[in-house]
Amino acid sequence: MTVTRRALLAGGAVAGVGAAAAAGLAAAGSGRSEGSAPAPVPVSFTDIGTGRVAFHGPRQAGVTTEPPAHAAFLSFTLAKGTDRQALGRLMRLLTDDAARLTQGEPALGDTEAELALHPARLTVTFGFGPGLYRAAGLASPVTDLPPFAIDRLEDRWSGGDLLLQICADDALTVTHAQRMLIKDARPFGAVRWVQRGFRRSAGVHAAGFTQRNVLGQLDGTANPRDAAMDTAVWNPDGSTTLVVRRIRAEIETWDLLSVTDKENAVGRRMTSGAPLSGRDEFDEPDFAQLDDTGLPVMPDFSHVTRARMSDPRLKILRRPYNYDEAPDAQGRPDSGLVFASYQADIDRQFLPIQRRLAEKDLLNEWTTPIGSAVFAVPPGCSAGGWIGERLLA
Amino acid sequence: MTVTRRALLAGGAVAGVGAAAAAGLAAAGSGRSEGSAPAPVPVSFTDIGTGRVAFHGPRQAGVTTEPPAHAAFLSFTLAKGTDRQALGRLMRLLTDDAARLTQGEPALGDTEAELALHPARLTVTFGFGPGLYRAAGLASPVTDLPPFAIDRLEDRWSGGDLLLQICADDALTVTHAQRMLIKDARPFGAVRWVQRGFRRSAGVHAAGFTQRNVLGQLDGTANPRDAAMDTAVWNPDGSTTLVVRRIRAEIETWDLLSVTDKENAVGRRMTSGAPLSGRDEFDEPDFAQLDDTGLPVMPDFSHVTRARMSDPRLKILRRPYNYDEAPDAQGRPDSGLVFASYQADIDRQFLPIQRRLAEKDLLNEWTTPIGSAVFAVPPGCSAGGWIGERLLA
Ligand code: HEM
Ligand code: HEM
Repeated sequence: MTVTRRALLAGGAVAGVGAAAAAGLAAAGSGRSEGSAPAPVPVSFTDIGTGRVAFHGPRQAGVTTEPPAHAAFLSFTLAKGTDRQALGRLMRLLTDDAARLTQGEPALGDTEAELALHPARLTVTFGFGPGLYRAAGLASPVTDLPPFAIDRLEDRWSGGDLLLQICADDALTVTHAQRMLIKDARPFGAVRWVQRGFRRSAGVHAAGFTQRNVLGQLDGTANPRDAAMDTAVWNPDGSTTLVVRRIRAEIETWDLLSVTDKENAVGRRMTSGAPLSGRDEFDEPDFAQLDDTGLPVMPDFSHVTRARMSDPRLKILRRPYNYDEAPDAQGRPDSGLVFASYQADIDRQFLPIQRRLAEKDLLNEWTTPIGSAVFAVPPGCSAGGWIGERLLA
Repeated sequence: MTVTRRALLAGGAVAGVGAAAAAGLAAAGSGRSEGSAPAPVPVSFTDIGTGRVAFHGPRQAGVTTEPPAHAAFLSFTLAKGTDRQALGRLMRLLTDDAARLTQGEPALGDTEAELALHPARLTVTFGFGPGLYRAAGLASPVTDLPPFAIDRLEDRWSGGDLLLQICADDALTVTHAQRMLIKDARPFGAVRWVQRGFRRSAGVHAAGFTQRNVLGQLDGTANPRDAAMDTAVWNPDGSTTLVVRRIRAEIETWDLLSVTDKENAVGRRMTSGAPLSGRDEFDEPDFAQLDDTGLPVMPDFSHVTRARMSDPRLKILRRPYNYDEAPDAQGRPDSGLVFASYQADIDRQFLPIQRRLAEKDLLNEWTTPIGSAVFAVPPGCSAGGWIGERLLA
């Protein structure tokens, strides 16, 4: 539950804070961004450690769930000979422990049971890569992305047969869940890569505020919301797909730009996130507007101009996390986005956007894709079931 | 300000939430740990993003400040020829930007000014290594620790002429401060190492609760508090010293232990943190108590038995952060503590404890020091001044 300081001081809006905290955090908030000019300072009003997100249901959690502060993306390579039956055993184990951990209960045979007691809105989301379908003798609904001219992909951040996306508002909770789930998966394969990422901590913003990324940009403004989000993300059976791209930010050269150049690269203002054609963050960009010299106010090659899809069925849900690894001896940052996007269909939604951006996007000069992986995200399951049961049972 | 859910629902204790939030977080709380049996669920009640810790004062912040969730420890090697004058310029620059950033203001020439607006209790603490004193032509008050038989030190985590400890409740705030301060330091030296670490997020516990580390232990129970903390940490001139040890946790073998074995290694219960001779976390350990077979209930070689100093002037203030890097392909964790301890005098306080522990401590079997560095922490400064002025001016 997020309330303004004014409401708080007035003693209002405090009923049912316990269970409501998690629900309130998950619900979209006022939609004001940290860049907007004078706005009432939000006070986040939550029991951060005990927040629980339901695990069971027709769709997996962690997709349209408001993203918590910390994430680990784990990709596995299946051991040779892991067949459909073995995959069924693996997914039963993983589902069972994920269901427990997300509800603040220790994993089966948890070796650090005390670390399980603060779920902090923990979600565990499973994705199946092309190799998992091959191993199971099934046709894969997803295929690796084609190469793009902008790519500088490294194996150590690319591909994978099975993905676990672990998110929570507490880094120790993520660490513990990761450790327990890796133990389950170990006999069935090798860890291919792990990518950790972060967003603003719970309580820094009211829920639904747009966050900034490591480039200082408000990131997430034009994401589809509510019904439009549902349309973009979910297939009727409760499945979706996930693209994970590790994208390095070229911060050294980005830092040399003037604010105007930064704004032209994206098509939005740095401070407010407003489109260059508008005044407020959530104003619709007007791509027809011309400036005094007759040029479009929203540059033709700005990131937003190129990425925009007006048909809600062609939008994607971006759910990126920042990364920031140790700088080198010269102090140059190793920083960027673990760019994660959910969409009902990669070919129909993600690919056309990525193709247009790869072809032309001013922002490309300051961003470099160094990892890439695709996963089908199977439907959720009910309390007795397990993730992937319709495929692997 | 931390209040129980009961108090919240009654609408009490909400006055002055803004400024009081930071103060409340910094103050010691009820002292209940997350391991204690049925206790009222705490609701943390804070404006996490806007929390400010004063920068100026006779002592540096970030030492006896209640540790926030995220930390970066940055160690620099000074460039050849960096003399006392150059060090003065460097410390003026760093002090000026640290003072701004901790108060939620952009650094001078901040290239991502918007990222500065959420200090989230940011502190920046400066430490001077032996090499800095050498460079300045001064006698160093600290010297590298002697080698211990338990050490497996790696250069990449050891030593350094200048240390910055950057702590905040938000990982993006730490990232941004780190980037701006590295820019200041670059012309004067190279980044030697960076260690990131985490504790429980703000709002997971009430302030003052003992946190768990990656081994699942309650860590911090016997830290000196209040006046005893002052005695242990500060010299009359406002200076102190810092030891940073990177200590790997051997989680694979730790996980094979029974709960009883884990408890004997430390001398405290896993769940409650109580000494084996007592019932509650804050009961004083009774080292004379014998069990039915005539053996001491607190094992002679338990970590607590070996580490205990009864004289408050010989205690140390432990301020460790967890680390958890990517596991290897077999899924083995790369996890442990960035163990940081503050004490008025390393030789008098830290060394005797470390010597006893290195000689005999059951916990040694599951912990391995892989990095080590020592720093003098000069006094704080007033608004017109800079850190290190008494030495370097
Ligand atoms: C490091 C890489 C990237 C950065 C820093 C970045 C940054 C941004 C920013 C600042 C915005 C404007 C605010 C917003 O609506 O969120 C935006 C919008 C958008 N981006 Fe990116 N982006 C990156 C990569 C990508 C990629 C790889 C894709 C998809 C292939 C993508 C697709 C989009 C879309 C669809 C929009 C919304 C356009 C609209 O309808 O207004 N972005 N991005
Ligand atoms: C990974 C390494 C370490 C772990 C996991 C660890 C863990 C613990 C735990 C669980 C306790 C009991 C609870 C508490 O009072 O906090 C404790 C106490 C203590 N530890 Fe450590 N520790 C480590 C390294 C060290 C080192 C390197 C030193 C100093 C050289 C040290 C000094 C102490 C002291 C002084 C106490 C309090 C003893 C007392 O007076 O009761 N520890 N530690």
